Amino acid sequence: MAFIVLKFGGTSLADIAKIEAVSLQIKREIEFGNRVLVVVSAMAGVTNQLVGFVSGITSYFDPVEYDAVVAAGEQITAGLLAIALQKYDVPARSWQAWQAGIMAQGRPMCGEIYKVNQSLLLVDIEKGCVPIVTGFQAISLEQRVMTLGRGGSDTSAVMLAAQLGAERCDIYTDVDGIYSADPKWVPQARKHDVISYEDVLEMASVGAKVLQVRSVVAAMGQDVPLRVLSTFMDQPGTMIVHQDKIIDQKPFSGVVVSKNEVMVKISGQISTVSLMKEIGSLGLTIDMVSIQSNYLVFLLQDTEALRVKYELERKAEMMGISKIEFLKDIVKVSVIGLGIRSNQDFLSIFFESIGQVTSNILSFMATENRASVVVPTLNGEAVVLALHENLGL
Amino acid sequence: MAFIVLKFGGTSLADIAKIEAVSLQIKREIEFGNRVLVVVSAMAGVTNQLVGFVSGITSYFDPVEYDAVVAAGEQITAGLLAIALQKYDVPARSWQAWQAGIMAQGRPMCGEIYKVNQSLLLVDIEKGCVPIVTGFQAISLEQRVMTLGRGGSDTSAVMLAAQLGAERCDIYTDVDGIYSADPKWVPQARKHDVISYEDVLEMASVGAKVLQVRSVVAAMGQDVPLRVLSTFMDQPGTMIVHQDKIIDQKPFSGVVVSKNEVMVKISGQISTVSLMKEIGSLGLTIDMVSIQSNYLVFLLQDTEALRVKYELERKAEMMGISKIEFLKDIVKVSVIGLGIRSNQDFLSIFFESIGQVTSNILSFMATENRASVVVPTLNGEAVVLALHENLGL
Repeated sequence: MAFIVLKFGGTSLADIAKIEAVSLQIKREIEFGNRVLVVVSAMAGVTNQLVGFVSGITSYFDPVEYDAVVAAGEQITAGLLAIALQKYDVPARSWQAWQAGIMAQGRPMCGEIYKVNQSLLLVDIEKGCVPIVTGFQAISLEQRVMTLGRGGSDTSAVMLAAQLGAERCDIYTDVDGIYSADPKWVPQARKHDVISYEDVLEMASVGAKVLQVRSVVAAMGQDVPLRVLSTFMDQPGTMIVHQDKIIDQKPFSGVVVSKNEVMVKISGQISTVSLMKEIGSLGLTIDMVSIQSNYLVFLLQDTEALRVKYELERKAEMMGISKIEFLKDIVKVSVIGLGIRSNQDFLSIFFESIGQVTSNILSFMATENRASVVVPTLNGEAVVLALHENLGL
Repeated sequence: MAFIVLKFGGTSLADIAKIEAVSLQIKREIEFGNRVLVVVSAMAGVTNQLVGFVSGITSYFDPVEYDAVVAAGEQITAGLLAIALQKYDVPARSWQAWQAGIMAQGRPMCGEIYKVNQSLLLVDIEKGCVPIVTGFQAISLEQRVMTLGRGGSDTSAVMLAAQLGAERCDIYTDVDGIYSADPKWVPQARKHDVISYEDVLEMASVGAKVLQVRSVVAAMGQDVPLRVLSTFMDQPGTMIVHQDKIIDQKPFSGVVVSKNEVMVKISGQISTVSLMKEIGSLGLTIDMVSIQSNYLVFLLQDTEALRVKYELERKAEMMGISKIEFLKDIVKVSVIGLGIRSNQDFLSIFFESIGQVTSNILSFMATENRASVVVPTLNGEAVVLALHENLGL
């Protein structure tokens, strides 16, 4: 008998019919002889609706109140799923973050769970009851609601699995596993049976939307095996474990595309150090940084572009910036895998593949297990297909 | 400088524009020199939507989980209103029931507040901050969410006003006060400047939807003056105080119509006592009870009719019931006021007025300050108009 944490995302709980289907899925897991704890997201669309309400009032909202508003969605699904389980004779109860004593620290809107009142939940489980815990939310030291960032329910599930000593954390979503490429772009994409935390982390960092980056970091750090699988298909999904537990490790895990990027070029008599400090203080995640004597280039999520423009233009003179340019209509294509450093032919295959499609390479970088290239959006799909085929993915 | 509790209903908070308007209303109140605490309902329609989700799963839901689900709506408006107030430079923060220590006892779905952690809220107010408290919800001894019944935010506001020693509780809604009749039915209806708790209580009991019955009981018992006024019109509204504080008391306060009624007739060799006990155990509110040797007649909300039919038919044989009939398409028309016992001409005017319209009187009863008659729906409007005019309302 194993103890498993099951996490269901918003698309799995999008309406009453789906919530009932999820409850039968949970019931099956229990009938296999497992004990379970369930973590839920908000119904698909609800969090976006709540965020819309907040930003409809002002862009300069109090992040603590933002958290109080957007955390409501999980509360609804937790109660509904408990009711659905009871309907199928499975004892269940909902737990909000304050009831389960899920404590977070850090900044509002992206809090980090550091403690869970295990005993409360374990007593529930020992009574044969299924705890349905609201994901995405925790409580701050000041007894306010603190959310964990978009996709934060994944992190809630991993942290609960770690703190309660679960054997595994199953992330149920609308895809049936982790693929070597997005099947919408690459019909031949292959599903992984098993993949390493490291590669999934790299995939998530460069734009794959399977799991929240932080949840993978937490799972890796706390040694919680993750499984990504579909709520709607009876498929085993993809297991995520430590690299050294994978016997037949493939050199390349996948090709990932990130679409919502802009390339920023800042020119002038700039001090790179103070400019990077400034960018860091805006809480931005930037990538593909290239530094030259009189300009700096990097990639940024396009939703952040306006804010960066505003902030840097205010300080342009002080910082020696003479020009800020934004290049749109680009995509970042990344190859992930240990083959990047270990396979001697990698670079030639990589550039050969891109060269088949375009000579317009806007930026390139490589690390131990990732190689990324920026190309015009119109070449994106062909580049992905060429890389996927030529690297034998 | 007065300390006032302001309560805003769902229609006052129905969208972002209205939430902003409410925040300006609160700001004005503060600029008058008052200190305020605000209680909010869910946005109009949200609670119904959540109730719909629950009953979409099953009719036999766990009431505790129902409460966990439907309480989410108030959390959203509390956060949004705090953000809107901050936008207009009014320091504010949202308080959920568990944060404010609002404790309830009794049954889920209709809990009763018995304690509020005053010090937390008072500290906030003394700092010059406006607490925005979620109405309709409290916390049970078991640390679960407990809601207070439909319209329960009124009761939250009254209980907070009582426990924190507020001078007054202002109930902001979509009508600008309490009228002598529904202006939709009676264009000549008159708005009360002042009215007694007793009359409002009676009005609410017989179907007027201005305030939750329990909130009026609480206000009367704890001596909290209530004011009902419109969020959208700059009108003084209606003050509700003790009878003995009203100098110029009118004999009649109003004519109230209750539409969603069915008349139930139970025949057979029945024991009235055991039948009434059975009905009581179903948690029903019944009215206009008439007992004869071999039948019992009463009025019931039509939403309860199916459940009563089901429960009584199961026990029909045991209880000596030979027949259960339901009469629909009826309305209950009630006159409220102390004139019912004090005015010697009342009964003749009352029946004369009804006789002008119909001779089909299905039931009648009178107490000290209320007289009710049941007539066919098609005569309802004419009966109300005749009573309103002939009683000089």
